[in-house]
Amino acid sequence: MSLLVIGTLAYAAVETPNDKREGLLGGSAMYCAVAAAAMRRRESPGPRLVGVVGQDFREEDLEMMRKAGIDVDGVEVAEGKTFRWGGRYEPDWNTRHTTFTDLNVLEHFDPKVPEAFRDSEYVFLANAHPAVQAKALEQVNGSPFVVADTMNLWIEIALDDLKTLLQRIDGLILNDEEARMLTGKANLIQAAQQVLAMGPRYVILKKGEHGAFIMGEDVHFSLPAYPVTDVVDPTGAGDCFAGGFMGSLVRDGAHHPEALRRAMLFGTVTASFCVQGFSVESLVTRSGDQLQARFQELASICTL
Amino acid sequence: MSLLVIGTLAYAAVETPNDKREGLLGGSAMYCAVAAAAMRRRESPGPRLVGVVGQDFREEDLEMMRKAGIDVDGVEVAEGKTFRWGGRYEPDWNTRHTTFTDLNVLEHFDPKVPEAFRDSEYVFLANAHPAVQAKALEQVNGSPFVVADTMNLWIEIALDDLKTLLQRIDGLILNDEEARMLTGKANLIQAAQQVLAMGPRYVILKKGEHGAFIMGEDVHFSLPAYPVTDVVDPTGAGDCFAGGFMGSLVRDGAHHPEALRRAMLFGTVTASFCVQGFSVESLVTRSGDQLQARFQELASICTL
Repeated sequence: MSLLVIGTLAYAAVETPNDKREGLLGGSAMYCAVAAAAMRRRESPGPRLVGVVGQDFREEDLEMMRKAGIDVDGVEVAEGKTFRWGGRYEPDWNTRHTTFTDLNVLEHFDPKVPEAFRDSEYVFLANAHPAVQAKALEQVNGSPFVVADTMNLWIEIALDDLKTLLQRIDGLILNDEEARMLTGKANLIQAAQQVLAMGPRYVILKKGEHGAFIMGEDVHFSLPAYPVTDVVDPTGAGDCFAGGFMGSLVRDGAHHPEALRRAMLFGTVTASFCVQGFSVESLVTRSGDQLQARFQELASICTL
Repeated sequence: MSLLVIGTLAYAAVETPNDKREGLLGGSAMYCAVAAAAMRRRESPGPRLVGVVGQDFREEDLEMMRKAGIDVDGVEVAEGKTFRWGGRYEPDWNTRHTTFTDLNVLEHFDPKVPEAFRDSEYVFLANAHPAVQAKALEQVNGSPFVVADTMNLWIEIALDDLKTLLQRIDGLILNDEEARMLTGKANLIQAAQQVLAMGPRYVILKKGEHGAFIMGEDVHFSLPAYPVTDVVDPTGAGDCFAGGFMGSLVRDGAHHPEALRRAMLFGTVTASFCVQGFSVESLVTRSGDQLQARFQELASICTL
């Protein structure tokens, strides 16, 4: 079983209530791939990554991803600079302001899925313009299990493209704010039902510190966030959730309700490690045993 | 096993985004007692209620409580009018403004626990001034399992009394805002740990539509809210949660970790019925089978 992850790689400047960092490796697809790689069984192939970076992209960052088990053959190096982004968190940690966005090479991102990646059985379309996501998806053969992420910007400026995409994917991952925006429903259960009516078989709704739920044709499962008390940087938590979620499905080689429930827990686990450090520094050093231990702990917290 | 509930009875004026009602039966102890009564086994004695009302209190409301199985012998009728309160919800349903508060007979509330109630093995101190809660507790014999509620007002103006009370109770139920206010911790897990350091063995933290968790010496359990899509009036949901929680413990005749987890589910179930109507109109008509069915549904949503 192989997982294909398509989306952005970035360098980020992040300001939290406690600290400030620049030049952090970021990007939705990078976070997702690292989390999914952490989920793989020893000796299993890691996720396949498709994205674009600039000529300034650090070789050490590519090397880190390779070491983590990610196949970076789909990371195109384009002329120009890597996508850059800056964010600042309010003292409550929940509100984030974007301080700047330099699209750079991302502006003309035209995803090319390498021939060797086209047989992937699981596909994650990380946050990108829905037309770009669709273009990437067209290059995949067979009938993969496809989950996509999106963001408020695309709901605002590319709603038609997003609605078209929703007809072609199995699951949509989005956060509470995006769900309300996409559906106009304040009640998150109603919002989730509305998303399902738009096409996907499953909707995964993330609520930050309040956990997440999955709803769909044969599953309804809700769980709390893992209780992290030492948050260092919340950036990428949602993408790492998606990576842990997809990585768990690939590991199980299945997406039946039981596998989906377990995937929700593993998504929560990888997201919790993510927020305990800047970039993926806390996640990339975790052993499978550590993930498994936190999975068990979380299971005990949310099981009757 | 008997449950003693001490707190307020009120008449309330409630304005929701959809509707407006006056003269609604309310009060923290009333909501709690009705929810606990709904939890009792057929033929088992219902909760014992201690509170004060004015001469204007409607006989039909006392009769409704009696029919629900509540022992109202501890409801004192004092000279004057019943406590009155008004609230208005913002369009998002989450923010409530108090439009007026007429304490009336509540101003000189001096709880008197009838002799026949003093052997109660479970005691719930519904929201009231912590000194009043302590005064009520002093009248109970033996070593009951005591859980208390509180509110932001008491954290502001009676913090020392509250801290003294915390040394004498087994569990504190409070919402996220109150937990942050009491402890100064924004992170709810840290806030809960801080509350435990103040004395009680258990803290039950309610997060509204995001569910609740219990943390303590031998238990840590978190669960989502029951997915209600037809909210009519959120008023009293927290008190009904407490009532379902305490009622479940009494029904089990135990407060070991397994009973506490089950109680969290039943609290969630009674709260969910509460919000589907004004006052307790939706809760009071529920059969034990309906509660049980929703318990099972919730268990399936939150179990791996």
